Amino acid sequence: MKARVHVMLKNGVLDPQGEAVRHALGALGFDGVQGVRQGKVIELDLADGTSEATVTEMCEKLLANTVIESYSVEVV
Amino acid sequence: MKARVHVMLKNGVLDPQGEAVRHALGALGFDGVQGVRQGKVIELDLADGTSEATVTEMCEKLLANTVIESYSVEVV
Repeated sequence: MKARVHVMLKNGVLDPQGEAVRHALGALGFDGVQGVRQGKVIELDLADGTSEATVTEMCEKLLANTVIESYSVEVV
Repeated sequence: MKARVHVMLKNGVLDPQGEAVRHALGALGFDGVQGVRQGKVIELDLADGTSEATVTEMCEKLLANTVIESYSVEVV
């Protein structure tokens, strides 16, 4: 089975990467870019029968820093 | 409007970040992790009426390195 995990900085946490992208898009002439947030996507190729709870545990223990990041798990 | 862009390394391109995550998950006792690929997700907050073609152009010009990365655009 495959799972996809999205990890994003929580709202209110400063995102310098996203801010740099927003600035660069403006410099390239793309108008109307009001905000950019950049996060991570992690695609996991797992043994069949792995539960979504196990993937959530992976997020809690390793994939996300839950102090400043939120995550979502999607089984593909 | 909001758009979400996924940028992943193309198949066949070595992904040391993903490999490090796979190794770390194994060390934490998670068995059966056969492969991990790590990519970026970029959430764009755009002016209403921005076309998907414009977002594609942003990907080609800035967000993805199309030599080694593939991208997908999703309007949310």
